[in-house]
Amino acid sequence: MFKANVVVSLKKQVLDPQGKQIQHALHDLGLSSVKSLRYGKFIEVELDSASREEAQEQLDAICRKLLANPVIEDYRFDIE
Amino acid sequence: MFKANVVVSLKKQVLDPQGKQIQHALHDLGLSSVKSLRYGKFIEVELDSASREEAQEQLDAICRKLLANPVIEDYRFDIE
Repeated sequence: MFKANVVVSLKKQVLDPQGKQIQHALHDLGLSSVKSLRYGKFIEVELDSASREEAQEQLDAICRKLLANPVIEDYRFDIE
Repeated sequence: MFKANVVVSLKKQVLDPQGKQIQHALHDLGLSSVKSLRYGKFIEVELDSASREEAQEQLDAICRKLLANPVIEDYRFDIE
Protein backbone atom coordinates (compact mmCIF):
# COMPACT_ATOMS: atom_id res chain seq x y z
CA MET A 1 0.00 0.00 0.00
CA PHE A 2 1.37 3.40 -1.00
CA LYS A 3 0.31 6.77 0.42
CA ALA A 4 0.57 9.82 -1.78
CA ASN A 5 -0.16 13.52 -1.49
CA VAL A 6 -1.37 15.25 -4.64
CA VAL A 7 -1.39 19.04 -5.08
CA VAL A 8 -3.40 20.57 -7.92
CA SER A 9 -2.91 24.28 -8.45
CA LEU A 10 -3.82 26.83 -11.08
CA LYS A 11 -1.05 27.62 -13.56
CA LYS A 12 0.86 30.82 -12.79
CA GLN A 13 -0.64 32.70 -15.76
CA VAL A 14 -4.23 31.82 -14.84
CA LEU A 15 -6.21 34.27 -12.71
CA ASP A 16 -7.29 32.97 -9.30
CA PRO A 17 -10.47 34.86 -8.27
CA GLN A 18 -11.01 32.60 -5.25
CA GLY A 19 -7.53 33.33 -3.94
CA LYS A 20 -8.02 37.06 -4.54
CA GLN A 21 -11.29 36.96 -2.60
CA ILE A 22 -9.61 35.25 0.36
CA GLN A 23 -6.87 37.87 0.29
CA HIS A 24 -9.48 40.67 0.38
CA ALA A 25 -11.24 38.96 3.30
CA LEU A 26 -7.92 38.72 5.17
CA HIS A 27 -7.27 42.43 4.62
CA ASP A 28 -10.74 43.17 6.01
CA LEU A 29 -9.85 41.08 9.07
CA GLY A 30 -6.73 43.19 9.59
CA LEU A 31 -4.33 40.53 8.29
CA SER A 32 -2.78 42.70 5.62
CA SER A 33 0.67 41.12 5.67
CA VAL A 34 -0.50 38.64 3.02
CA LYS A 35 0.94 39.83 -0.28
CA SER A 36 -0.21 37.02 -2.51
CA LEU A 37 -2.40 33.96 -2.12
CA ARG A 38 -3.18 31.11 -4.52
CA TYR A 39 -5.89 28.58 -3.86
CA GLY A 40 -5.56 24.93 -4.86
CA LYS A 41 -6.55 21.37 -4.05
CA PHE A 42 -4.85 18.82 -1.85
CA ILE A 43 -5.73 15.15 -2.20
CA GLU A 44 -4.47 12.32 0.02
CA VAL A 45 -4.58 8.99 -1.78
CA GLU A 46 -3.94 5.42 -0.68
CA LEU A 47 -3.03 3.13 -3.55
CA ASP A 48 -2.90 -0.63 -3.68
CA SER A 49 -0.09 -0.85 -6.24
CA ALA A 50 2.45 -3.60 -6.73
CA SER A 51 5.43 -1.24 -6.93
CA ARG A 52 6.42 2.38 -6.52
CA GLU A 53 6.69 2.76 -10.31
CA GLU A 54 3.18 1.41 -10.80
CA ALA A 55 1.86 3.77 -8.11
CA GLN A 56 3.55 6.66 -9.89
CA GLU A 57 1.94 5.72 -13.24
CA GLN A 58 -1.47 5.31 -11.64
CA LEU A 59 -1.22 8.66 -9.87
CA ASP A 60 -0.27 10.31 -13.13
CA ALA A 61 -3.34 8.78 -14.80
CA ILE A 62 -5.59 9.84 -11.90
CA CYS A 63 -4.36 13.43 -12.12
CA ARG A 64 -4.63 13.64 -15.91
CA LYS A 65 -8.02 11.97 -16.16
CA LEU A 66 -9.86 13.39 -13.19
CA LEU A 67 -8.17 15.56 -10.60
CA ALA A 68 -6.59 18.25 -12.75
CA ASN A 69 -7.68 20.18 -15.80
CA PRO A 70 -4.38 20.28 -17.75
CA VAL A 71 -5.45 23.39 -19.67
CA ILE A 72 -5.44 25.61 -16.58
CA GLU A 73 -3.96 23.48 -13.79
CA ASP A 74 -0.64 21.93 -12.84
CA TYR A 75 -0.30 18.91 -10.60
CA ARG A 76 2.45 17.34 -8.56
CA PHE A 77 2.55 14.45 -6.13
CA ASP A 78 4.89 12.75 -3.75
CA ILE A 79 4.68 9.14 -2.68
CA GLU A 80 5.55 8.40 0.94
CA MET B 1 9.08 38.01 2.30
CA PHE B 2 8.14 34.51 3.44
CA LYS B 3 6.49 31.84 1.31
CA ALA B 4 4.29 29.26 2.99
CA ASN B 5 2.20 26.28 1.97
CA VAL B 6 -0.97 25.67 3.96
CA VAL B 7 -2.89 22.39 3.89
CA VAL B 8 -6.42 22.29 5.27
CA SER B 9 -7.98 18.84 5.51
CA LEU B 10 -11.04 17.30 7.11
CA LYS B 11 -10.43 15.66 10.47
CA LYS B 12 -10.06 11.88 10.28
CA GLN B 13 -13.43 11.23 11.97
CA VAL B 14 -15.35 13.53 9.61
CA LEU B 15 -16.97 12.00 6.53
CA ASP B 16 -15.64 13.24 3.20
CA PRO B 17 -18.43 12.90 0.60
CA GLN B 18 -16.41 14.78 -2.04
CA GLY B 19 -13.49 12.38 -1.65
CA LYS B 20 -15.83 9.39 -1.79
CA GLN B 21 -17.38 10.73 -5.00
CA ILE B 22 -13.96 11.12 -6.62
CA GLN B 23 -13.08 7.59 -5.60
CA HIS B 24 -16.29 6.27 -7.21
CA ALA B 25 -15.51 8.20 -10.39
CA LEU B 26 -12.00 6.71 -10.47
CA HIS B 27 -13.44 3.21 -10.13
CA ASP B 28 -15.78 3.94 -13.04
CA LEU B 29 -12.73 5.04 -15.06
CA GLY B 30 -11.08 1.70 -14.32
CA LEU B 31 -8.63 3.12 -11.77
CA SER B 32 -9.66 0.82 -8.96
CA SER B 33 -6.29 0.66 -7.22
CA VAL B 34 -7.30 3.70 -5.14
CA LYS B 35 -8.26 2.37 -1.72
CA SER B 36 -8.92 5.65 0.04
CA LEU B 37 -9.04 9.30 -0.95
CA ARG B 38 -9.45 12.46 1.14
CA TYR B 39 -10.06 15.84 -0.41
CA GLY B 40 -8.62 19.03 1.06
CA LYS B 41 -7.40 22.54 0.31
CA PHE B 42 -3.93 23.75 -0.53
CA ILE B 43 -3.11 27.44 -0.19
CA GLU B 44 0.14 29.10 -1.21
CA VAL B 45 0.74 32.33 0.72
CA GLU B 46 3.35 35.07 0.47
CA LEU B 47 3.74 37.03 3.67
CA ASP B 48 5.47 40.32 4.29
CA SER B 49 6.53 39.56 7.86
CA ALA B 50 9.50 40.90 9.82
CA SER B 51 10.60 37.50 11.09
CA ARG B 52 9.91 33.79 10.74
CA GLU B 53 8.19 33.80 14.15
CA GLU B 54 5.90 36.62 13.11
CA ALA B 55 5.08 34.81 9.86
CA GLN B 56 4.23 31.71 11.88
CA GLU B 57 1.88 33.64 14.17
CA GLN B 58 0.20 35.34 11.24
CA LEU B 59 -0.30 32.06 9.40
CA ASP B 60 -1.82 30.57 12.51
CA ALA B 61 -4.26 33.49 12.74
CA ILE B 62 -5.10 33.23 9.02
CA CYS B 63 -5.89 29.53 9.37
CA ARG B 64 -7.93 29.90 12.54
CA LYS B 65 -9.89 32.94 11.39
CA LEU B 66 -10.56 32.17 7.76
CA LEU B 67 -9.05 29.17 6.00
CA ALA B 68 -10.05 26.35 8.32
CA ASN B 69 -13.17 25.48 10.25
CA PRO B 70 -11.62 24.15 13.48
CA VAL B 71 -14.72 22.10 14.29
CA ILE B 72 -14.28 19.78 11.33
CA GLU B 73 -10.89 20.66 9.81
CA ASP B 74 -7.22 20.41 10.70
CA TYR B 75 -4.57 22.66 9.25
CA ARG B 76 -0.82 22.57 8.93
CA PHE B 77 1.69 24.79 7.18
CA ASP B 78 5.37 24.96 6.38
CA ILE B 79 7.33 28.12 5.77
CA GLU B 80 10.01 27.98 3.07
